[in-house]
Amino acid sequence: MNSIYRKALFNIPPGMIYLDGNSLGPPVKEIESISNKVIVEEWGGKLIKGWNESNWMEQPLTVGNKIANIIGGDKGSIVAGDTLSIKTYQALAAAIKLKPKRNIILTDIDNFPSDIYIAEGLIDSLNSNFELQKVKKENIISSLNENVNVVLLTHVNYRTGAMFDIEKVTKKVHENGSTMIWDLAHSAGAVPLDLKVINCEFAVGCTYKFLNGGPGSPAFIYVRPDLIKKCYPILRGWLGHKAPFDFTNTFEKSASIEMMRVGTPPVIQTAILEKALDIFQGINFNELREESIKLSDFLIKMVEQKCPDLHLESPINSSDRGSQVSFSHPSGYAIMQALIDRNIVGDFRAPNIIRFGITPLYINEDDIIQTVKVLREILSNRLWENPIYMNRKKVT
Amino acid sequence: MNSIYRKALFNIPPGMIYLDGNSLGPPVKEIESISNKVIVEEWGGKLIKGWNESNWMEQPLTVGNKIANIIGGDKGSIVAGDTLSIKTYQALAAAIKLKPKRNIILTDIDNFPSDIYIAEGLIDSLNSNFELQKVKKENIISSLNENVNVVLLTHVNYRTGAMFDIEKVTKKVHENGSTMIWDLAHSAGAVPLDLKVINCEFAVGCTYKFLNGGPGSPAFIYVRPDLIKKCYPILRGWLGHKAPFDFTNTFEKSASIEMMRVGTPPVIQTAILEKALDIFQGINFNELREESIKLSDFLIKMVEQKCPDLHLESPINSSDRGSQVSFSHPSGYAIMQALIDRNIVGDFRAPNIIRFGITPLYINEDDIIQTVKVLREILSNRLWENPIYMNRKKVT
Repeated sequence: MNSIYRKALFNIPPGMIYLDGNSLGPPVKEIESISNKVIVEEWGGKLIKGWNESNWMEQPLTVGNKIANIIGGDKGSIVAGDTLSIKTYQALAAAIKLKPKRNIILTDIDNFPSDIYIAEGLIDSLNSNFELQKVKKENIISSLNENVNVVLLTHVNYRTGAMFDIEKVTKKVHENGSTMIWDLAHSAGAVPLDLKVINCEFAVGCTYKFLNGGPGSPAFIYVRPDLIKKCYPILRGWLGHKAPFDFTNTFEKSASIEMMRVGTPPVIQTAILEKALDIFQGINFNELREESIKLSDFLIKMVEQKCPDLHLESPINSSDRGSQVSFSHPSGYAIMQALIDRNIVGDFRAPNIIRFGITPLYINEDDIIQTVKVLREILSNRLWENPIYMNRKKVT
Repeated sequence: MNSIYRKALFNIPPGMIYLDGNSLGPPVKEIESISNKVIVEEWGGKLIKGWNESNWMEQPLTVGNKIANIIGGDKGSIVAGDTLSIKTYQALAAAIKLKPKRNIILTDIDNFPSDIYIAEGLIDSLNSNFELQKVKKENIISSLNENVNVVLLTHVNYRTGAMFDIEKVTKKVHENGSTMIWDLAHSAGAVPLDLKVINCEFAVGCTYKFLNGGPGSPAFIYVRPDLIKKCYPILRGWLGHKAPFDFTNTFEKSASIEMMRVGTPPVIQTAILEKALDIFQGINFNELREESIKLSDFLIKMVEQKCPDLHLESPINSSDRGSQVSFSHPSGYAIMQALIDRNIVGDFRAPNIIRFGITPLYINEDDIIQTVKVLREILSNRLWENPIYMNRKKVT
């Protein structure tokens, strides 16, 4: 058994092989004791005094620092809060002000839709000649030119698991004089990251995937420390003010990363997230990555042998892949439903992709063997043709 | 006993008189059973399937409809999510597009700071001649002119409890051809509201005050039904898309109020909020208001008699006042600390205001009598001069 595996610490239904931690990580066992504590002792027990006597006010920064430990940011460079969409909007709006003469936001045409929508919404509001240029992944570097203000990319693609060379791309973007924003939604907690080495100006991410923060847990934003003083927030909530409780009617931004706070934080979910992050204490991300690659390569090889109808959509080369393996099949949706009904849970992304999140914290080689065995049964016997699967309502 | 009083349903520390429900409402008893259920049964028990098999996806709209019942909105006109700052930003950005030739956002100079900061942040991004005009409360109507695009006001002032005549102001704003946005942070759950009669275009509010949703519970936004089709969201998160799970890279807004959703909702806190709102089922807001006025008037009269050093900062006329009574005193901060240490909890707002939220659901006449008795002791004996109170760290 590898040293990373610790399924016993998670609350996963008995018998379930959970290959969807890239979409919603499982709860750490007894994490409800945290919400109970916040609700009963802090909220109910102290009421408004909870703000003074508990850690509610500091928690977005405390949690940010814990995330920084996981992704290699300096202390005081990350704050938690809001959703990834909001954090992306803040990062983009701050970034474009750094290079006032450049008018292009460059992104991957296959980026997660919200990143694209959020950029377009911002541009629409600017009344200027800004434009969003969406190009294929492989054309990002060749599309860099003197008009490119900022490059917004997701490190690991949500659909295919394809992963950018984060250091190399950032370096090229910087050589072009542009600003780099990385969306780490599918990489934080999954692959080794060192923001200090990557040197990007901004990073954003969510915490309910590989970081196991729970459904709709707060997102995070990183601003490179040298830029915190230079940037000005577009979303000026009272908690981004340097002295929120002075209640002045002139906004003066906090001198710290807390300028990127907006409104009153979701205290209960932030506390749950904080607890969830503790599971990463002592985790060596190089070991975790090694195990993730081993499991992913094994899954790919086994599927190739046993399930030839599935087409690999993820890069075959492990260094180009995050911690997720995707396959396509014209009936991918029904196949995944059949698999889920056999207690092996991955998910589906339109039009035809089935995804498997590889999370060595609670997935091991036996799970991969069992997954491929069941997949093979489903495919060989066309079990997915059952109308139960084909007609099941699609949501996530 | 009035028919509104139901303190037994809340979790308030024994012996505490809680006069700060205008800042953070108390938890409904055993509300932690809701977070337990979501965490253990839905998140832990179903993992990703929670999105399909629980009500996570629909909940922001379900909760919006429950809020609509409380503040008189049509079904499908309100959605919950994010924070009040974010919802205000969305409302403002949508509103100003409705009158493209008018360049003034008009607001109260004493509005809650976030409302002012958020408007300024938006304007800064617009690269246009928009300006925020901040005028005194009494000059709002006289400042209306052909350039006023939108008027952004908070119904009940957070510091003084002064309340606008919401119908009259809205009517004047409309006569001027301007758009009306009401921030209902200090009135939703506290005073009778009927958005259908008020007829404002937008309303926003938070839910952790009089609605008892818990620290950092989701905010809400109302868009008048006839405008839902006309407005376009500035913050384009994937859940505002008409078909989020198609993952197309072109944003097409939802045809419903859900266009104002942004990112993945905080499922646990939304569930807690939903439960908290149920306490308002069957509440007659006219009765609640009558009781609130009775208690407020009684507090004002008693303080006038027993604590002449306190200066009333709230309107004396009950129809000009929300459900909060504020007094000023040069040592207001220390006085409030002395009161809190005697288990009577109100709060303080700089520079010198002590605030008492009047919440007839769990405050009655005996509580007011006791509050004034203790206040009188503190003032008569200058108990607030104790350095413990004068030097206590200020947070909320």
